[in-house]
Amino acid sequence: MTAANAAPKSLARARELVTPVLAAASATLSPELRHIVEYHWGWVDAAGQPQRGAAGKMLRPTLAMLSAEAVGAPAERASAAAAAVEIIHDFTLLHDDVMDGDRERRHRPTAWTVFGVGPAICGGDALVLLAQRLLLEDAGDARAAAALALNEAAAEVIAGQVLDLSFEGRFDVSLERYLEMAGQKTGALLACAASIGALAAGGPEAAVRDLHAYGAALGLAFQAVDDWLGIWGRPERTGKPVASDLRQRKSSLPIVFALNESDDAARALRALLEDPAALGDETSLAEGVALLDACGAEQRTRDEAARQIAAARRALARAPIAAAARDELSELTRFVVEREF
Amino acid sequence: MTAANAAPKSLARARELVTPVLAAASATLSPELRHIVEYHWGWVDAAGQPQRGAAGKMLRPTLAMLSAEAVGAPAERASAAAAAVEIIHDFTLLHDDVMDGDRERRHRPTAWTVFGVGPAICGGDALVLLAQRLLLEDAGDARAAAALALNEAAAEVIAGQVLDLSFEGRFDVSLERYLEMAGQKTGALLACAASIGALAAGGPEAAVRDLHAYGAALGLAFQAVDDWLGIWGRPERTGKPVASDLRQRKSSLPIVFALNESDDAARALRALLEDPAALGDETSLAEGVALLDACGAEQRTRDEAARQIAAARRALARAPIAAAARDELSELTRFVVEREF
Repeated sequence: MTAANAAPKSLARARELVTPVLAAASATLSPELRHIVEYHWGWVDAAGQPQRGAAGKMLRPTLAMLSAEAVGAPAERASAAAAAVEIIHDFTLLHDDVMDGDRERRHRPTAWTVFGVGPAICGGDALVLLAQRLLLEDAGDARAAAALALNEAAAEVIAGQVLDLSFEGRFDVSLERYLEMAGQKTGALLACAASIGALAAGGPEAAVRDLHAYGAALGLAFQAVDDWLGIWGRPERTGKPVASDLRQRKSSLPIVFALNESDDAARALRALLEDPAALGDETSLAEGVALLDACGAEQRTRDEAARQIAAARRALARAPIAAAARDELSELTRFVVEREF
Repeated sequence: MTAANAAPKSLARARELVTPVLAAASATLSPELRHIVEYHWGWVDAAGQPQRGAAGKMLRPTLAMLSAEAVGAPAERASAAAAAVEIIHDFTLLHDDVMDGDRERRHRPTAWTVFGVGPAICGGDALVLLAQRLLLEDAGDARAAAALALNEAAAEVIAGQVLDLSFEGRFDVSLERYLEMAGQKTGALLACAASIGALAAGGPEAAVRDLHAYGAALGLAFQAVDDWLGIWGRPERTGKPVASDLRQRKSSLPIVFALNESDDAARALRALLEDPAALGDETSLAEGVALLDACGAEQRTRDEAARQIAAARRALARAPIAAAARDELSELTRFVVEREF
């Protein structure tokens, strides 16, 4: 068994599986689009020179690969699907960075700051089409089903993103709306990733369904942990400033929990969030964090994460799947949600 | 036979065919996304209230419908494909308006000015996924082939758009590069539209190929006409200011023709385009148009349009298709390229 903070071997195995598929896919793009996409992947620098990768963790391809193995298929069976879910994830990152005006990702300038807003939007557009094409060109009877499953998940991510955008500057977001948004924006693609390998391999319906439920809960757990880290995470670990989400006045889970309370602490927190002059310095941020704590938001966020982790583990336990894949998924779950938490 | 300036009946027939498919498709979106999409279609206003449509001409659905009829299939056989090509067209318009900062389309404020840049990007993203889904959910063996054909055409449009963006502020675009861009940005989707109905209906390969060639040439003809209108079109007909493309310093076909000449007029035109103080008033614009004329750009643009129209007509003449559909496509060709030209 791997220690909770060591990267599971399955991540490296998935990276090896999908890297050639990603390389072949980006080679079909026009030179301009290929540059944008491979820059975003950390394969080349702004001048187009090869660079040692600053790529993502490959969480989604790993889920896709393990879900094929879970129904007794070889990892190769999921290679197109695994690459396609990663490409959809990258499409959403490219567009989100434009929409949110984020200038840095994975410690590098974001694509739009290097290539401009228009080309970065085009880069995302090219990726969403590429992901669909990989599945349509994939061999096997299940290709249309897999293409449809990924299409629906991507559409949910977009719906979640537009909902999230609508939360900006509002401090009356209900817990229900927040969970709907997180389920769409984070849960849907993880649910798809965790089941698409089984789907593409023609695995039994019950396995596909339970793996889907596992991924959805894992996504909500991941988001709750991320939101916890966005307030209480240590900057040297998260790479973000102290109380980052409070600074940005983001309707993250702890803030939604707190603002749905009706006590004095909640009222004081709302006043801070609505005051444009507040939350700019360490004293004001510390006050905000203290108010969140007073509302019980820290514990409730931890509880929500624990609830979703338990749901993910239950779905995994009941899924009719191979023992080895279950163990690797279980290890991956720990890695994803037990980040310094 | 319809007069050149009267709208062919096939356009109205296609509108009737696809409107229910579009309505059912947008009803599957989240309320926020549906509002953006139906606003863009001219079905609702900024407040979400029903509005009498300011929708597009339905050129692409008409081509798709006629291409199914061309191989002896009923129009209904192409309804999903016809709606899907229109949706892809709308996706490109939504994103192009963001990238180009255009504030008006079809005499209404563009979606991003009403809903914001982020939601407008999401609206486009939702449409590209919706178009693919319509074809994946469509009945019949050919659905994957049709989905793939549309996917490839959309990818070409993106490649063309990113190339077009790279032309901005450059006055050294070769004719070859310009035609590559126009072929991708305008030709690819018309080629797909003109053949996807035949493809979805399982029509003979030769018909699909010739209809594809017809659409590609029609697209280049359409673009040449549009570029002619962008300089010499009458404002009361085009809805754009006099010499609009010159004003915007756009590398359109006449300007590319002129700048690839090496005479005095070409040098003087380049000096005007490179002078930020020029092309802002009627005198300066009239001077620019006179220089274009002196370079022979007006006649060469007309010649290029005529060449592509002839290529489209030849492809249509040799295609092994039904006579009625050929007549309607021929009528549509006239309507598209003989706009006050």
